Amino acid sequence: MGIDPRLAWMPDELSSGDGPDERALALERFGFEILDLVSDQAACVKPQSAFFEREGWRGVRALERICAEARRRGLLVIGDVKRGDIGSTAQAYAEAAFGRDGSEDILFDAVTVNPYMGRDAVLPFYELGQRRGCGVFVLMRTSNPGAEDLQNCLIDGRPLYERVAALLREWAPKGDLGAVVGATRPEELESVRQMLPDHWFLLPGVGAQGGTMSQAARSVDAKGSGILVNVSRSIGHAWRTRGRETAPADWRDEVRAAAMAYRRDLEEAIEARS
Amino acid sequence: MGIDPRLAWMPDELSSGDGPDERALALERFGFEILDLVSDQAACVKPQSAFFEREGWRGVRALERICAEARRRGLLVIGDVKRGDIGSTAQAYAEAAFGRDGSEDILFDAVTVNPYMGRDAVLPFYELGQRRGCGVFVLMRTSNPGAEDLQNCLIDGRPLYERVAALLREWAPKGDLGAVVGATRPEELESVRQMLPDHWFLLPGVGAQGGTMSQAARSVDAKGSGILVNVSRSIGHAWRTRGRETAPADWRDEVRAAAMAYRRDLEEAIEARS
Repeated sequence: MGIDPRLAWMPDELSSGDGPDERALALERFGFEILDLVSDQAACVKPQSAFFEREGWRGVRALERICAEARRRGLLVIGDVKRGDIGSTAQAYAEAAFGRDGSEDILFDAVTVNPYMGRDAVLPFYELGQRRGCGVFVLMRTSNPGAEDLQNCLIDGRPLYERVAALLREWAPKGDLGAVVGATRPEELESVRQMLPDHWFLLPGVGAQGGTMSQAARSVDAKGSGILVNVSRSIGHAWRTRGRETAPADWRDEVRAAAMAYRRDLEEAIEARS
Repeated sequence: MGIDPRLAWMPDELSSGDGPDERALALERFGFEILDLVSDQAACVKPQSAFFEREGWRGVRALERICAEARRRGLLVIGDVKRGDIGSTAQAYAEAAFGRDGSEDILFDAVTVNPYMGRDAVLPFYELGQRRGCGVFVLMRTSNPGAEDLQNCLIDGRPLYERVAALLREWAPKGDLGAVVGATRPEELESVRQMLPDHWFLLPGVGAQGGTMSQAARSVDAKGSGILVNVSRSIGHAWRTRGRETAPADWRDEVRAAAMAYRRDLEEAIEARS
């Protein structure tokens, strides 16, 4: 379950004004509402850091509070931060996410990481994650139109994202380093699964972006597992996908019904595969 | 001038304890000290977001305060955030940096952006930046060893980073979209300059990473301009590059002397080119 709060789309009752404190409070309330509504329907929550950072340090504090509450409820938290930097800077980002060695603080159980800068950008997250019991998903083939600008460029006849897959295999031969692969391109998803039979995939793109659960389910591993399918807008702002601009009075029922429907779709799609 | 505060390397007098408030306060004090020491020697400051995010929302608040003070002093602020996400998420990151249309808040005058996800990841920053008077530097050929994992892969016989250069030329033919190119690889720097004669370059890698000002100066544009050379550790923690673990009593003098020496080196190197 993605937590991507857009203030412009928020139910009126969650906002109390347009000042910086009120805006951050609305984000926090939305996050806690989502946890109330979907905790028993989702394995993980994936907050999108950008929507919190947009409100400055107060937004970051709201994100931290939502993550702590999610972990208290037993949900795994995937921080969708897409960080990518090197050496001691990557180490600092990794510590921001997973906490320092020996500390008790964990913000995220896993994060998304950008591979453009290569191994120095990925391995500090992976290695600290190993020690902290936390995980990493490396961007591979994303679900957006512009992904083709670089990710599909051919290197020795194979697309760049397959080069990233080969690097993952080299860095983590046991499969304990995940990949982000968009559910919108089922053939590419299957070719990456063939290269990485044991790695976990995080799949965005289902719902608003047009991907379906049956496309996503084509990438389960041999055990019928190994995928995390994320849905954000189509659950959290469900009324909008039904064509309404503003949240109806029973928006909570719609969010919960959408979460249950997507969960059922996923279960059925996986069942149909096996 | 980079602002990359490492708490472990901080002069003792700047820290007042190891609690979360004290740690963030030490970052803030360090940033303000750096502004005091180098405001008349640098055109821009480039805070590295990771070292602030590592201390959670309190660290982000410290970063915001340092940036506001730098802008008050007339320095341009380059937020080294290396964000890379798409669509409305990229828009949210861009608004976090440059402020929303119509608002008075600007956090950063420019940011670094990762191109792996393609145009949807870069153009929202570029377009909001155009309206807000703010700029973008796209990662192209970075200065770290692992950069070769992807950036030097050959596409039709040319390295991937040249494909990024070609995209910049396509997206911003007038040259108003910058590039990050490491000063550690002078031949690659020159080849990128040939492709992008009018674009601004942000050059990391001088100092601790082994690049020199004369290597950097080889990439000036036809007007003898067009480059921003960043130095972080070798000025801000100058005593460490001289082999001392802890800051001496006169650390301020060392920081200022290092800033002046690097500035002189850069001026001489550019003069020697023209």
